[in-house]
Amino acid sequence: MSYKHNFEFCLADSIGNSGLASAKFEKLMECATESINKLADKSHSDTQSLFGLVRTCEDLETLETIAEQYCEFFDHVIVLGTGGSSLGGQALTALAPIPRPKEVAARPTLHFMANIDPDSFERLFQKIEAERTGFLVISKSGSTAETMAQFIYCMDVFRKHLGQDKFANHFTSITEPGHRPLREMSETHGITVIDHHPAIGGRYSALSATGMLPAMIAGLDGEALRSGAASLVDSITNSGSARDVAPAVGAVLAVGLAQYNGITASVLMPYLDRLEIFGKWYRQLWAESLGKDGKGTTPIDALGTVDQHSQLQLYLDGPKDKFFTLIISEMIQKGGLLPKDLINLPELAYLAGRSVGDLMAAEQQATIETLVAHNCPTRVLEIRHLDEYTLGALMMHFMLETIIAADLMDVNPFNQPAVEEGKVLVRKMMNERNVT
Amino acid sequence: MSYKHNFEFCLADSIGNSGLASAKFEKLMECATESINKLADKSHSDTQSLFGLVRTCEDLETLETIAEQYCEFFDHVIVLGTGGSSLGGQALTALAPIPRPKEVAARPTLHFMANIDPDSFERLFQKIEAERTGFLVISKSGSTAETMAQFIYCMDVFRKHLGQDKFANHFTSITEPGHRPLREMSETHGITVIDHHPAIGGRYSALSATGMLPAMIAGLDGEALRSGAASLVDSITNSGSARDVAPAVGAVLAVGLAQYNGITASVLMPYLDRLEIFGKWYRQLWAESLGKDGKGTTPIDALGTVDQHSQLQLYLDGPKDKFFTLIISEMIQKGGLLPKDLINLPELAYLAGRSVGDLMAAEQQATIETLVAHNCPTRVLEIRHLDEYTLGALMMHFMLETIIAADLMDVNPFNQPAVEEGKVLVRKMMNERNVT
Repeated sequence: MSYKHNFEFCLADSIGNSGLASAKFEKLMECATESINKLADKSHSDTQSLFGLVRTCEDLETLETIAEQYCEFFDHVIVLGTGGSSLGGQALTALAPIPRPKEVAARPTLHFMANIDPDSFERLFQKIEAERTGFLVISKSGSTAETMAQFIYCMDVFRKHLGQDKFANHFTSITEPGHRPLREMSETHGITVIDHHPAIGGRYSALSATGMLPAMIAGLDGEALRSGAASLVDSITNSGSARDVAPAVGAVLAVGLAQYNGITASVLMPYLDRLEIFGKWYRQLWAESLGKDGKGTTPIDALGTVDQHSQLQLYLDGPKDKFFTLIISEMIQKGGLLPKDLINLPELAYLAGRSVGDLMAAEQQATIETLVAHNCPTRVLEIRHLDEYTLGALMMHFMLETIIAADLMDVNPFNQPAVEEGKVLVRKMMNERNVT
Repeated sequence: MSYKHNFEFCLADSIGNSGLASAKFEKLMECATESINKLADKSHSDTQSLFGLVRTCEDLETLETIAEQYCEFFDHVIVLGTGGSSLGGQALTALAPIPRPKEVAARPTLHFMANIDPDSFERLFQKIEAERTGFLVISKSGSTAETMAQFIYCMDVFRKHLGQDKFANHFTSITEPGHRPLREMSETHGITVIDHHPAIGGRYSALSATGMLPAMIAGLDGEALRSGAASLVDSITNSGSARDVAPAVGAVLAVGLAQYNGITASVLMPYLDRLEIFGKWYRQLWAESLGKDGKGTTPIDALGTVDQHSQLQLYLDGPKDKFFTLIISEMIQKGGLLPKDLINLPELAYLAGRSVGDLMAAEQQATIETLVAHNCPTRVLEIRHLDEYTLGALMMHFMLETIIAADLMDVNPFNQPAVEEGKVLVRKMMNERNVT
């Protein structure tokens, strides 16, 4: 197993009434067993597509070819896309290997432009040279207003710099098959188009081309990512009981604490900087999948140790309405040493001769103990080392946890009906306003 | 006024029962008037220090000298510090002017290292040259474990690179007067120390040296920041009624909606990328100031348009437990144009001939209208243009709103008692573990 899942401190047996009572836990675990049996059943197309995706690597060859070209020709790669078209790639590429001194600049710098703030484009365009810059344009529907505006704007800038004949070589699009504005516009200009998996929604698409192409440009091992994710799928399909499936246990805790203990928020707090954006990815996954019909809990992304100095006061002494998930890793003896000769004060003796990682390890443990001492429901995912396999496993853990939680809450985890209204309004406003 | 404060859509008169009833609003407004009268009274030292700080620029001259030296000698500046010692500077420097092509690299790149993840230091040290890198080390208490570990570690790395005699010139510390480990260690090595204002707590310190020195290195106008903040202080000291004071109205709404309408979370959603970290700064300010004695609401940082594609489904159709504050700006006709000749599809006609800013403007308006249509309590801070004066005003708006909300909730906004426990535990664990 790529991580340990310790959930003891979420249960009433350990932390009293703020934890989930064991009878309720057991009852929900039975429902979760039904959920995983449904998931394991081959007739569920949404999840079967996801399960099938991570068990294959056939598509990676095509992506690798594009990734190699992008690495050869470009110093900067600008990823246009928002929400599920951006957060997965961002979360993955945060794991990019540290370049060794002599290979600096061997891989392009990735820029994820998820917004349409004109100022940000101006700042970005100051940093890059058009000749050495490529684009990935990602929109599942191929019609997302922000992404299409970004695409048209960047095409215009780049054709001015590179000429009508050349700019198309700097772009690659990812969108669904069929009549999609992004596909049709790309084809008009001779831009390569890669298929977005039609049965996999944006927020579940990190391990498909949308996340994998940026990841491979950044130098990650796509097969290891998939294989880590597949190990979690195996835990579903090979097990008849939710008890053996960490995401099922997690879903039971989240749903049970919400239903019976008034827990309205779910805090994900990794103690690794490279998982900071993973927290944002989780935030979309959980919010958009479950926030329906007045249901859902509010996901909160936090980062240890940083948010010990920002949010912990609220967590410990504010309203008891949060469920905490900490992701910690083996830190002892890692990182730079704090040499004794620089520490001549008794107040700092506790640091002398230790490593920065030793301090991180103590911070992890102290936060867990303090949360538990304040009777905050706290579970811990413990990893040994953050690599592609582990990251793939963590991603699939939270995708499955979300899907199972949705089943326990009786909502559809794959749609997002409420946001359509705003999109219609945007088009109406744009059409009504006079063009200057 | 540097912004408009539109709060109509937070009241029951506009959005029905999910808004604050007018009798409750009026009652709380009377309490808020008492609060601002207390604040205007010169005997309240915590706030009087803050008010005095932003009304003076005397200290900026010393900071400017250091900022100029840092700009001359360094290409990279690493800011060591966490929580209030980091977020204010981060929020300010996000506003750094866009370098014009010929002045690229005229100012150093700032790196805020708020965490102690060994991997992040390894990544950072790959990017920099010791000879051209300076440090700011910031800790009010001068004993924050993470900051002291960062400081000792970086001193060790830099003395190896630069030699015992030279490394001290690359460091400047900011800490309180008196016996402080950071001050004593700095003095031992001949490192310049600047006083942290003793009466201003970390999360209220952005406009003091902690935030202002990074801001001035980044090229911001410190006087304009202070003067924008002072305009809000004037609104308190010159007004006898909370009705004329935007932060007082905001505090009433936040506290009233929490007390009477079950609103447990407060979402701050600016539509400007440069305010993204401002959201994180606000998150600490609100959480740490109010999260006490089981009280407080949970601050959530969001970003438009990005979180329309991540969080809006939950906001509109999930539990009605959130109070929304949107910060919008004048966007019409800003940014790149989307030329008609690139748009040959009827589905995209609404974009043809418009600017990226036109789309941003429509997105801002559509989100407001959609939230209101779903009866979500929504207020809007509208700015014309984001400059130093406006940012200073926005910062002071939220500091005052927090302080007044604390008074209405009867909590002390200036302490953070619950986090001490974890800090004690960290030291105990570090002392007990055997040094290897």
